[in-house]
Amino acid sequence: MTTLNRRWVLRRRPEGRLQDSDFARSDVELANLGPDEVRVRVTHLSFDPTQRMWISADSYLPAVPIGAVVRAGGVGQVVASNRPDLKPGQLVQGSFGWQDFVQSKGITELGPITPLAAGLSPETALGVMGLTSITAWFGVHDILQPKPGEAAVVSGAAGATGSAAGQILKAAGVRVIGIAGGPEKTRWVKESAKLDDCIDYKNEDVIQRIAQFAPNGVNMVFENVGGAILDASLANLAQRARIALCGGISGYDTGEVQGLKNYMSLVIQRAKLEGFLVLDYFPRMGEAVHGLGALLAQGKLRVEVDMQQGFEHIPATLRRLFEGKNRGKQLLKIADPPLPVTN
Amino acid sequence: MTTLNRRWVLRRRPEGRLQDSDFARSDVELANLGPDEVRVRVTHLSFDPTQRMWISADSYLPAVPIGAVVRAGGVGQVVASNRPDLKPGQLVQGSFGWQDFVQSKGITELGPITPLAAGLSPETALGVMGLTSITAWFGVHDILQPKPGEAAVVSGAAGATGSAAGQILKAAGVRVIGIAGGPEKTRWVKESAKLDDCIDYKNEDVIQRIAQFAPNGVNMVFENVGGAILDASLANLAQRARIALCGGISGYDTGEVQGLKNYMSLVIQRAKLEGFLVLDYFPRMGEAVHGLGALLAQGKLRVEVDMQQGFEHIPATLRRLFEGKNRGKQLLKIADPPLPVTN
Repeated sequence: MTTLNRRWVLRRRPEGRLQDSDFARSDVELANLGPDEVRVRVTHLSFDPTQRMWISADSYLPAVPIGAVVRAGGVGQVVASNRPDLKPGQLVQGSFGWQDFVQSKGITELGPITPLAAGLSPETALGVMGLTSITAWFGVHDILQPKPGEAAVVSGAAGATGSAAGQILKAAGVRVIGIAGGPEKTRWVKESAKLDDCIDYKNEDVIQRIAQFAPNGVNMVFENVGGAILDASLANLAQRARIALCGGISGYDTGEVQGLKNYMSLVIQRAKLEGFLVLDYFPRMGEAVHGLGALLAQGKLRVEVDMQQGFEHIPATLRRLFEGKNRGKQLLKIADPPLPVTN
Repeated sequence: MTTLNRRWVLRRRPEGRLQDSDFARSDVELANLGPDEVRVRVTHLSFDPTQRMWISADSYLPAVPIGAVVRAGGVGQVVASNRPDLKPGQLVQGSFGWQDFVQSKGITELGPITPLAAGLSPETALGVMGLTSITAWFGVHDILQPKPGEAAVVSGAAGATGSAAGQILKAAGVRVIGIAGGPEKTRWVKESAKLDDCIDYKNEDVIQRIAQFAPNGVNMVFENVGGAILDASLANLAQRARIALCGGISGYDTGEVQGLKNYMSLVIQRAKLEGFLVLDYFPRMGEAVHGLGALLAQGKLRVEVDMQQGFEHIPATLRRLFEGKNRGKQLLKIADPPLPVTN
């Protein structure tokens, strides 16, 4: 009996806004499981702005080749295994891609397939304890290095990385103002993520509101958006300000990047704009897991999960990120564990 | 007998390109010398891009007030003194401004009036050993921290700061490519400053030429220009690249800053864009003087001096910087030491 592996592959490099036709279905039959191989049924996929970069061009990772399965992190369940380290029934995570099944010798493109910690749900593993929160942890503690009493701006504050960064900064004794799009997200940032304040960039003057919040200037910026939003923070820096440049989603989808004009304030304020990637921190992952776990246990960290459903909706779910539709961490469920296992 | 003090004051904040009418003459009679005061006859003035910022708005220093003498560094000679530390006849430097005479209790706006080291000419004190070279020294050694064998880009490479930065990097074992405007400056950068290569941004494709020079990416950028020139370096960064942001002269005069579009390469390459000001290094000035002196003695540092003449040409001389007319360090001589002294 053969098993079908449904797959979404990259049909062409997107130009401008993402379209369904940038992707194509290319289902295949699964091969028999080879020696030392594990078969994982993917159950949950993670959607992240950086995927827009992966399908567009070589960047910090080689571009996803045309015709290849789209790269994506996810959670799945081991359904068959010829490996002693991965047991049928176990929940695991890895860089599984937009497909039903992964068969490999225990590794994926971005590292080993690893079992979820006991009791961790897929939503938690990919959400509040996921790579977006780990990104936020190192961006805050390694790049920004907050001191209690300082003031910070976090853009994309209702997003997965931004909401985690804001709460991690709060827990470090920092006064934090978020920036988000629309009254609903703004309210969530204030009421659920409990940042000190939040600017609705669609309806408020961002430069002015930052200046009101931090009349002596902003000591730190955790930047996810770029363009005009980052320029507004640049216009409000305090001396020796640090900016952790995590992403620039404003320019990802249209390809029309709005140039930064206020960069001379980096000179005037002796400030630093520093890019970073969570990949570089994989060897130190334990620090973040420990730190995030402590915040979670203290009720100081909540990340909303936006769970979509259905394999056919995968491309549309990626678009949600660039249309500002996601509420917090964007996930999609394609199967419900526990699933039957074959050995 | 009264003595006239000729002065150029700021008439209005410049809008767009500098005009002579942004400045006005406002000559006054010198007061009698008070107790503890020194009278300095200004002989040489320094012209620097940062002055464009000083007359435009509050920045890292308060803006020059309308009606006040324009702030400028310079060299002069003590012509009268009621201070034991400053003797008539001595050559001194300080923030003297666009005027013939300074009378003060030994200090100026940016620090004390200090005697020139024995044997140092005004051209050398303001040129190769001046603040522009000191800026270059700390930008290279404190911000960039070069390692032998790395590749660097220096923009404004025929200017005072850029040419010093390029040579300081060379002396540290770095491969350096300059960027300058026009064949004459480009030739000077290669033949006199002896950088490894130089791009003529007026006639060459800067992005492409940097890529040819550094196919594995640029490890360091010493940036004086900003805008499209900095964007070309951003498009060519190596991993962990450092960019010392010293100035952004491309946007100073027109006020039309060309936004940086390639800032996401700071993320992809985990790179750092850091602004700095030489003012912060005044307590460590000795390090730079020592280091620059050693390079000078070894014949590894030459800064061209562009010496204009005449008090009436002061505003026009400032404009030379923004018209790309200066060759190296821009100075202007308004008097020839030695001058007669009165006590």
